[in-house]
Amino acid sequence: MQETVITSANKAYALLKADADKILKLIQVQMDNLTMPQCPLYEEVLDTHMFGLSKSIDFAVRMDLIEEQDGKALLDNLEKQLNFIHEKSQQK
Amino acid sequence: MQETVITSANKAYALLKADADKILKLIQVQMDNLTMPQCPLYEEVLDTHMFGLSKSIDFAVRMDLIEEQDGKALLDNLEKQLNFIHEKSQQK
Repeated sequence: MQETVITSANKAYALLKADADKILKLIQVQMDNLTMPQCPLYEEVLDTHMFGLSKSIDFAVRMDLIEEQDGKALLDNLEKQLNFIHEKSQQK
Repeated sequence: MQETVITSANKAYALLKADADKILKLIQVQMDNLTMPQCPLYEEVLDTHMFGLSKSIDFAVRMDLIEEQDGKALLDNLEKQLNFIHEKSQQK
């Protein structure tokens, strides 16, 4: 049983991390290809994806699949990386 | 181990069902108290909540915690109930 719990937790974290990476990739592609990174749609798309991920993380925490602090770290880390990409694109 | 899986599935479904009920309750309260149920904010709030719930359900399905058809039924059922409430409020 202990093994089952650990496996589920690993799977949950891996799924959520993959979701976060997908958002990062999407934004990266947008940044590389858009002539206008200040496009309001960018903010809206990003907000929607971040909200969706936060809901999945929230559910995983309530299911005791991941620790609350790990979920928070996942979101914070994604946000930091997105800010970094955004700043870099502004300097172009 | 079988027992653990069943318990997790029950918990997952109960959590998602409670989320759906919360959305229904929120909309019901809004309908009962708002003078303008056609307010655009109503649609936006509802969309956001539905999207959040669909993301949690999606995650639960990917974690094999609930069946895809059960998740879909949960969302469809909520939508039907919301439409019913909405129609009723229009007839007032």
